[in-house]
Amino acid sequence: MDISVWEAGSATASLQKVKRVLLEPGPDELVLEVLHCGLCHSDLSMIDNSWGISQYPLVPGHEVVGRVVSVGPGVDSAVIGQIRGLGWISGSCFRCHQCLEGTSNLCGSLEATIVGRQGGFASHVKAHQDWTVVLPEGLDPAVAGPLFCAGITVFAPLVDEQVSPMAHVAVVGIGGLGHLALQFARAWGCEVTALTTDGTKADEARRFGAHNVMLLEELPALLGRFDLIINTANQALDWPAVMGSLAPRGRLHQLGAVLQPIQVGAFDLISFRRSITGSPTSSPGSLRKMMEFCVRHDIKPQVEHLPLDQVNEAIERLHRGDVRYRFVLDQVA
Amino acid sequence: MDISVWEAGSATASLQKVKRVLLEPGPDELVLEVLHCGLCHSDLSMIDNSWGISQYPLVPGHEVVGRVVSVGPGVDSAVIGQIRGLGWISGSCFRCHQCLEGTSNLCGSLEATIVGRQGGFASHVKAHQDWTVVLPEGLDPAVAGPLFCAGITVFAPLVDEQVSPMAHVAVVGIGGLGHLALQFARAWGCEVTALTTDGTKADEARRFGAHNVMLLEELPALLGRFDLIINTANQALDWPAVMGSLAPRGRLHQLGAVLQPIQVGAFDLISFRRSITGSPTSSPGSLRKMMEFCVRHDIKPQVEHLPLDQVNEAIERLHRGDVRYRFVLDQVA
Repeated sequence: MDISVWEAGSATASLQKVKRVLLEPGPDELVLEVLHCGLCHSDLSMIDNSWGISQYPLVPGHEVVGRVVSVGPGVDSAVIGQIRGLGWISGSCFRCHQCLEGTSNLCGSLEATIVGRQGGFASHVKAHQDWTVVLPEGLDPAVAGPLFCAGITVFAPLVDEQVSPMAHVAVVGIGGLGHLALQFARAWGCEVTALTTDGTKADEARRFGAHNVMLLEELPALLGRFDLIINTANQALDWPAVMGSLAPRGRLHQLGAVLQPIQVGAFDLISFRRSITGSPTSSPGSLRKMMEFCVRHDIKPQVEHLPLDQVNEAIERLHRGDVRYRFVLDQVA
Repeated sequence: MDISVWEAGSATASLQKVKRVLLEPGPDELVLEVLHCGLCHSDLSMIDNSWGISQYPLVPGHEVVGRVVSVGPGVDSAVIGQIRGLGWISGSCFRCHQCLEGTSNLCGSLEATIVGRQGGFASHVKAHQDWTVVLPEGLDPAVAGPLFCAGITVFAPLVDEQVSPMAHVAVVGIGGLGHLALQFARAWGCEVTALTTDGTKADEARRFGAHNVMLLEELPALLGRFDLIINTANQALDWPAVMGSLAPRGRLHQLGAVLQPIQVGAFDLISFRRSITGSPTSSPGSLRKMMEFCVRHDIKPQVEHLPLDQVNEAIERLHRGDVRYRFVLDQVA
């Protein structure tokens, strides 16, 4: 079918709206008519080829909410008309060890929504049916998009690692990911501390659920304080201070794609059984759990809306960090 | 009571046999008459003050097997005559959060056997009753000593982290710790690979339980191979190769006290949910589990015996790495 997409012709280029062809959905695939699509920092990294994996022309956008308009072989046509969400992953093999164990987000044959295929800044986007999630009643499609990348990325360290509600949790970075991490950790039952370099966000951080707001520079004084630190920042931190602020058996969970190696002292790991973990987006199973949890606790991204035609303005503002806390680009008829 | 100890008067000094006084055991303490005591690499680090925590005169020795000869208030006198083992930790508060949760090896008020008190290279040594473990039937007291430091250190990453017997486990370093790690991992049901820089140890590594023996330099080719790497080496490794050799959800467990920071790429953690953990010795509970497991599977340290009077010769040879795989110093009447 003929579709329109917003694509970057080369690294760092502005997006151009062009007509493209979307091939018919294959087995187990479906096509979403895009209604809304969040703008994630990793869209910028992909446009700029910061990770060296970009293919051009590149159509970004991987926080999609759309309506099912057609289905491929093996998909029940009753799903046509449903409103579904789609995130970083649009397909996996569903045959390998990881897929069969329920961790298909770790499949070796992943299809990523914006790597080598057309993403969500488009009139339509295609995906494997099981990598799309039906939006439950009570979740506003206009703001839900960012849950499918930012949201699941910060929900994963709680749900997939079976964090105890007793945990003292710190969230580093109060941005697109962090403002959702605060909401999730608070609803999870945890004691929540926001760690930020920007003191002007303190009131908002409390509104998102933080019991405490501290400046990152205070960290060296917080010895043994946190059971879990969810680090959304993609700059290098004072790693010895981070590790020292972990309680016995405490864990640093790294989400930010910091490019310099993280430096960890062996004694910081050994002395008190501290650990470092990381994760990408999560599995179809955890995506569905997140939907239920968001409805149960009224968790939602705080977004600024712009029409999709202004995607380049949104990109430029996100580059400057000028957004609280996520852009959602809306398809306007 | 009057006792004899082997003590270092200052950093890097040879041990001298001298008479000292051992104060009466306090509440919940008991006194062991030392029969055998293993020599651990951390005794050398403490003699040399490599970690900056040594206090002189220093009496090393923390892999003790001894006979209970007297008890303090609150200890049942029926334990007198029992043969018990004692490791790195000789006391903890048993009141704090960590102690009450069963992880008293992470107590903030730990008493370490050779830090600021007299250790096991002595005629007698004192300890809290619950930090000594009765040797079960079937475990030879003459070789059991190294289990209480080397053994528990490598058993902890299996028992405390609830490793699945399905795991593919690599052990880096086939020395005092590694030769026990191979035995434990094999008996745990795992697939076991020994990674060494010394190809001459291959046959022995297989005898200890390794299914495979590989040179450490082969690691970069082993992408996604291991669910758990137990690293006993205290030199820096090719960290990107180590992380790359982990399977999805694989874990590097650091035991070696490498002094330079471990360097970890954020993507190596994030992409496949890999992690890094570390641990010191374990808890009284896990020490007792280890005893049972050793008897069940006939796991024992491979040791060279020397009389305690030759402890300086043992220290000198261990400095050169000239031991397979652990010295035990014997009390000779």
